[in-house]
Amino acid sequence: MHELAIELNEILKGTIVDEMLSDVGRRMFFPKGIVAQSAEAKLKATRFNATIGMATSDGQPMYLSDIYNQFSQDSLTPAEIFSYAAGGGDPQLRALWKEMLFKKNPSLQGKHFSLPIVTGGLTHGLSCLAQLFAQSGDTLVIPDLAWDNYELIFAQQVNATVKTFPLYDDKGGFNVAAMKEVLASVSGGKARILLNFPNNPTGYTPSETEMNAIAEALIDLAEDGMKLMVLCDDAYFGLFFEEETAKEGLFTRIANAHDNIFAIKCDAATKEDMVWGFRIGFLTYASKSLTPAQYDALNKKTLGIIRSTVSNCDRPGQSLLLHAMRDGKNYLRDKENARLEMAKRFHALTKALEKHAGSELLKPYPYNSGYFMAFKCKGSSEQLRQYLLEKYQVGCISIKDDTLRLAYCSVECDKIPELVDLVYQAAGEAWK
Amino acid sequence: MHELAIELNEILKGTIVDEMLSDVGRRMFFPKGIVAQSAEAKLKATRFNATIGMATSDGQPMYLSDIYNQFSQDSLTPAEIFSYAAGGGDPQLRALWKEMLFKKNPSLQGKHFSLPIVTGGLTHGLSCLAQLFAQSGDTLVIPDLAWDNYELIFAQQVNATVKTFPLYDDKGGFNVAAMKEVLASVSGGKARILLNFPNNPTGYTPSETEMNAIAEALIDLAEDGMKLMVLCDDAYFGLFFEEETAKEGLFTRIANAHDNIFAIKCDAATKEDMVWGFRIGFLTYASKSLTPAQYDALNKKTLGIIRSTVSNCDRPGQSLLLHAMRDGKNYLRDKENARLEMAKRFHALTKALEKHAGSELLKPYPYNSGYFMAFKCKGSSEQLRQYLLEKYQVGCISIKDDTLRLAYCSVECDKIPELVDLVYQAAGEAWK
Repeated sequence: MHELAIELNEILKGTIVDEMLSDVGRRMFFPKGIVAQSAEAKLKATRFNATIGMATSDGQPMYLSDIYNQFSQDSLTPAEIFSYAAGGGDPQLRALWKEMLFKKNPSLQGKHFSLPIVTGGLTHGLSCLAQLFAQSGDTLVIPDLAWDNYELIFAQQVNATVKTFPLYDDKGGFNVAAMKEVLASVSGGKARILLNFPNNPTGYTPSETEMNAIAEALIDLAEDGMKLMVLCDDAYFGLFFEEETAKEGLFTRIANAHDNIFAIKCDAATKEDMVWGFRIGFLTYASKSLTPAQYDALNKKTLGIIRSTVSNCDRPGQSLLLHAMRDGKNYLRDKENARLEMAKRFHALTKALEKHAGSELLKPYPYNSGYFMAFKCKGSSEQLRQYLLEKYQVGCISIKDDTLRLAYCSVECDKIPELVDLVYQAAGEAWK
Repeated sequence: MHELAIELNEILKGTIVDEMLSDVGRRMFFPKGIVAQSAEAKLKATRFNATIGMATSDGQPMYLSDIYNQFSQDSLTPAEIFSYAAGGGDPQLRALWKEMLFKKNPSLQGKHFSLPIVTGGLTHGLSCLAQLFAQSGDTLVIPDLAWDNYELIFAQQVNATVKTFPLYDDKGGFNVAAMKEVLASVSGGKARILLNFPNNPTGYTPSETEMNAIAEALIDLAEDGMKLMVLCDDAYFGLFFEEETAKEGLFTRIANAHDNIFAIKCDAATKEDMVWGFRIGFLTYASKSLTPAQYDALNKKTLGIIRSTVSNCDRPGQSLLLHAMRDGKNYLRDKENARLEMAKRFHALTKALEKHAGSELLKPYPYNSGYFMAFKCKGSSEQLRQYLLEKYQVGCISIKDDTLRLAYCSVECDKIPELVDLVYQAAGEAWK
C-alpha cells in the first residue's frame, strides 16, 4: 500500500469512517504529484509557472474564438471558462454552497461537517462513495421504490449486496419499522443505507414527525452498537409542496448524532438550480466525533477517488453557477418561481387524480414533493407504458413491471388533467 | 448476474473483448430502465412526454436567467445549455469527432471501429476502461516515464499490477525491445499496455519508423498467441513539431491488425480543442474481427459504466464545441495558430537548451511534441523543485525525485531562455 494511504488510514483509525472503508477506500490517497505541486506553484511561482499543462498566453488560457464568442461579452474570463477547475471544486462555490446549506437547513447551526466537495454530478458522488465505502460482502439498504441507478452503482459496479424494505407502511406513511428491521438484519453489525427525499420515483418526502422517527430509529440502532453509513440523496431538495413535509433533510438530524453514524449528504446544483446538464454535485461528510484532521484525511481520500475517476470537474458550469449565486440579481427569485410553478402542477395533479379516486387499476403512491408521482399498477406497467406510447403518444416510465412513474415536472399545468385521464383510460383499455 | 449482462457476454464470447473483461465488466450492462424508456419516448411521445426528470416549460428546460444571460444572445438554446446530454454524448458531436478522426489519421480509411463515445474527460474514459477491463491479477504495462494518474487509476482504484519499461533506449529512441520484453514477461498470455504520445512528462512522440516498429512488435506478440489490450492515450494529439514524427496515432496502425489485439483510442477535446475545463473525452474501440453486434455489446457495457459513474456528461460544453466545430468560421484557424505558437515555443526551448548542452546536472530527455519537456536530474529533482520555487519563484514538477518536468506550453516564447537558464543555474546551486 502507498505510504500516503497508510498515513490517511492511520489518522482515520478507530473512527466510523475506518469501519466503512472498502479495499479501494483503504488504498486511496491524494498524490503529492502534479496536482499538489501545481497548487503550490500557483501560490509561489510568481516569476514563471511551468507546472501548468495548458497552453496559455499572457496568463490566460488560449481558446477557440468560436467558443468564447458564444458567451456574452464581459461575463466570464477565458480562465473561468477554459481552465481546469480546482481539485475538489471552485473554492468560492464550495464556501457558498456550505453557506446555503445553513440557510436551507437552519438546524445545522452549531453542527460540524466537512466543506462540500464538488463532484461531476450527484451520480459521480454516489459512485465515489460506492468505491470508497462498499464492496463484495457489504450490504446497502434502499427502499423498494428507488432510482434504478443505485443498483447499477452499488451492485454491478462494486458488487455490494442490495437489500430493500417497503417504502410505505399500511397507512401510506414512511415505513420506519421495516427500515429498522432490515437494517438490524444485516450481519456483521455494519450497514449502509441510502435514502432519497423527495423520492424518485414516488415524489415522497416524510413528514416532520416521520423524519424524526427515521432519525430516532437510526440512532437507536447506533446506540445498540450497529455501525451505520447513511447516504442522504437530496437531489430534489427544496421542492416541497405541503405544510407538514419535513423541510430540512435527514442529514441535519443525524450529522452529529452518534459516533456509530457516518452521515453523508449527496446533493447537487443539477435540480436545485436547474442545471441538469452541468454535472455539479457535492459531497458533505459528518460524524459526531470526527476531528478536523480526520475530516481532512477523509477529504484527501475523496479527492483521490475524484482524481482517479474524472481528474476534475466541469469548470464553465461552476463559474456560471458561482456568478449566478454570488452576483445574480434574480437567483433566488427565479428559483422560487420555478418552485411555485412546480407547486401549481402538483396541485393540478392532485385535483386531476381525485376524479379517479377509488380506481382499482391505478393507485397513486403518496406523493408531496419533487418531480414525480407513481402509480401502483394492477396490471403490467410495461404493457401500459407501451400502450400509452403507441396508442396515445404519451411517454411514462415503467418500473419493475408494477409501477408507472409520471414526471409531472415536465408537463404544463393545464395539460395535467388530460394526461391523468389518458393514463387511466389507457389502463382500462390495456388491461381489459 | 443480470440477464442483460449475460446477453452481452454471450454476444462477446470468444472475442478479445471477452478475454479482457474484468468482473465488473462482466456484470455491466445498460439498463432498460429510465434512460432507455426516455429515449423511446423522445421519439414517440409527441402528445405528452412525462418521462423527463427536468422542470420544463413550453418544451424547453426552465433555467436561472442569471446563468442564461451569461451566454450571448442567439448562441445556444436553453435546451443546449441546461438539458441532460444524451447517453454516450451528443450524436452530432460523436459523428463529427469520428469524421475528424479520418481527417487526422487518413490511414484509418477502410478500417472499422466503434462510434466514439463521449466520456467526462480523458481520465473518465481511462477509469471506465480500468473498471471494465482490469482488476487484481491483471497487469498494465506503461513506460517508466508516464503520467502519475495511471497508477492511481489502475493500481489504487482497480488493484491491477503496474509494470514499467524504460521509455528510451540508449540512443534516445523509443525502446521497442524493452516494451516487447516486459509484455512477453506478463504471465497468463494476456497483457494490457497504455501508451501516451505525445508523452507526458517528456513530450516525446516516436518517429514514423519507430511507430511502425511498435506496431510490428505488438503484432508479433499477438501472432505468438499473446492477447493484448492496447490503450492509446492521445491526449496531446496533433501537437507535433518535427518532420520525422509519426503524425498518425498508434491506434490507426493496430485497429484492425490482429484478432489478439484490442485497440482503444482515448482522446479528448481537452487539449486538442483547448477546452481543459470542459471535460469532454472520447473512447473508440477496434479489433480485427469484431462484428457490428459485438461493437454494440461493447458500447452497451461502456454506456453502463458511464451511467453508473457519472450518469451522463457535460451538456453546455458539448453544445459549445459542436457549434464551434460545425459552424465556427475560425475553428481550424484558431487551432492551427495555437499549434504554431506551441511550435515557436518548442524551437525557442531547443535553442535555449543548446546553450547548456553537455551539462552533467540536467539532461533533457528527447522531446518533439506536446506540452512538456523533462530533464533527467543528477541530484534530487524534489530538492531542485523546492529550491526553484523558494529562491526564484519558478514552478516546475518533480517526478519520482529524478525527473524535472517543464510545461513550456504555459511560458511565453521570449521568456523561455530565461526560464531554462534559471533552471540550470538553480541546479548548480541546489546540488553543489
